[in-house]
Amino acid sequence: MLPDLPLEPVLELVGVFVSGLSGALAAVRKQFDVFGVVVLAWAAGLGGGLLRDVFLGAVPPVGISDWRLIGTAAVAGLTMYFFHPSLVRARRAIVVLDAGALALFTVVGTVKGLEYGAVPVAAVFVGVFTGVGGGVLRDLLTGEVPVVLHHRQLYAIPSLLGAVAIAGLWALEAYTTVTSLLVVVAVFAVRVLALQFRLNAPGPWREPTSRG
Amino acid sequence: MLPDLPLEPVLELVGVFVSGLSGALAAVRKQFDVFGVVVLAWAAGLGGGLLRDVFLGAVPPVGISDWRLIGTAAVAGLTMYFFHPSLVRARRAIVVLDAGALALFTVVGTVKGLEYGAVPVAAVFVGVFTGVGGGVLRDLLTGEVPVVLHHRQLYAIPSLLGAVAIAGLWALEAYTTVTSLLVVVAVFAVRVLALQFRLNAPGPWREPTSRG
Amino acid sequence: MLPDLPLEPVLELVGVFVSGLSGALAAVRKQFDVFGVVVLAWAAGLGGGLLRDVFLGAVPPVGISDWRLIGTAAVAGLTMYFFHPSLVRARRAIVVLDAGALALFTVVGTVKGLEYGAVPVAAVFVGVFTGVGGGVLRDLLTGEVPVVLHHRQLYAIPSLLGAVAIAGLWALEAYTTVTSLLVVVAVFAVRVLALQFRLNAPGPWREPTSRG
Repeated sequence: MLPDLPLEPVLELVGVFVSGLSGALAAVRKQFDVFGVVVLAWAAGLGGGLLRDVFLGAVPPVGISDWRLIGTAAVAGLTMYFFHPSLVRARRAIVVLDAGALALFTVVGTVKGLEYGAVPVAAVFVGVFTGVGGGVLRDLLTGEVPVVLHHRQLYAIPSLLGAVAIAGLWALEAYTTVTSLLVVVAVFAVRVLALQFRLNAPGPWREPTSRG
Repeated sequence: MLPDLPLEPVLELVGVFVSGLSGALAAVRKQFDVFGVVVLAWAAGLGGGLLRDVFLGAVPPVGISDWRLIGTAAVAGLTMYFFHPSLVRARRAIVVLDAGALALFTVVGTVKGLEYGAVPVAAVFVGVFTGVGGGVLRDLLTGEVPVVLHHRQLYAIPSLLGAVAIAGLWALEAYTTVTSLLVVVAVFAVRVLALQFRLNAPGPWREPTSRG
Repeated sequence: MLPDLPLEPVLELVGVFVSGLSGALAAVRKQFDVFGVVVLAWAAGLGGGLLRDVFLGAVPPVGISDWRLIGTAAVAGLTMYFFHPSLVRARRAIVVLDAGALALFTVVGTVKGLEYGAVPVAAVFVGVFTGVGGGVLRDLLTGEVPVVLHHRQLYAIPSLLGAVAIAGLWALEAYTTVTSLLVVVAVFAVRVLALQFRLNAPGPWREPTSRG
């Protein structure tokens, strides 16, 4: 949890809701039944935190024990199930909101790792898992290769930079509400700018002969 | 473990055996070698309990430490490997027995969660994971989208209702051998009736235009 | 860790590097971006140990907390990304080195399980998971059915025999640097001989009619 940040629980619920919508949308497209849509909303919204908590030994994970988070994911799933066509038109907004969830989850996850006494590199890992893990679970459960691994879009990279920044602030004893919020905003900004200007990671390796 | 229930260990072995058959059958159909068939029997028979134990911090999980359960799953795998054609003819019986495993695993899993001090919502989750998790692992390891997420059959829903019933009985201090067995029977009955009368969950979202 | 074995940390880094190459190669073939290639190197090189540590409650797992191991996997990923064509020509060498990683990871994993007080069957399981788990994760993340389950090559079997041997030595108080190294060499030898002479596990079940 971010310290002294009254908005943080609300932001976390918003993040779960938005990520849950992305999971539910993938399930609707795969013709899952209503139960499957809700499960995918749960997996995408809470799966990253689930991996984080398992890796930290924080059991049972909040993804199965915090009814506010679980209920929020379920509402996201039902919302997408019933209002699918309207929400598809709002797809652009969902992608931008998802960038906010990525930023927030990364920071919350890294901080939880540090609070559990993990070494910095482990805290960075659980932060990135918290940020991108839900999407990976969503893709595996719908039979897709995880999009974060091959799509070239800058998604995991801003998460990684944000997690490193939090671990650095923590080590320098400069971690405060203000600095952590700055990191959230920075991760969000990098992700949105990457979307806007199509900044990509180096793509698949190409045969030299294919360039000629 | 169900309290004062001498039959429970025997029932659990039967449940592992039947679930193991379903995993081994999926492996035989995918042309796995004998090792793969045994692994799939293990994953389907013990994978749900494995997730449960990881989420509860009950390590090492019984799925890798209880040689009776592991041996039972291995026998299920070898049985399917060698007697595949005969067992395929018994497919209907396997499906009905699998409903019994679903019911038993759900109750055993929920009770274990409560015994480990999990909040009721977490106990319900680990109960459902125990009931359906093996099938999900089976499907992921054979390259299939988990059937429980899209098949519309009532499979996870009776498990969920059963887990909620156990958590409710526990909270009301009405959890006894008799009431827990009633829940096992009820989950089994709902699942079998759903099979018999083809009761389904609401299916995939359909475009309004596709109805015209 | 193997006792009194100064070479062991070095051998473990070599094992992570070689396994990481196999993961990165799978990612390059799937046209993953550079981030995906590095993640697959990490998953293949450290995923087995990750499962081991989660099942033993040894959190956070070394796969996310030991920067030497993580850095080695990342270097393997980048090496494959940039020098893919040369490395493909060295494919035979990678397969042989991977047999060494299988042997070493199996022994290290089984010993860690025993050191954590796991019963012998659980130690054997975590040893095999350590040996073959990285390859399973690699396959799942690239959308493939795990090759260890259907390819018939002797891969998990030598790992299983090696883990059983270590647990036996431990129970007989005959576990020493020399005996553990003998097990590593034996697992390696069985695997390489199986490759050389195409020794296979019993394959998929075949219909009797298909033989006629």
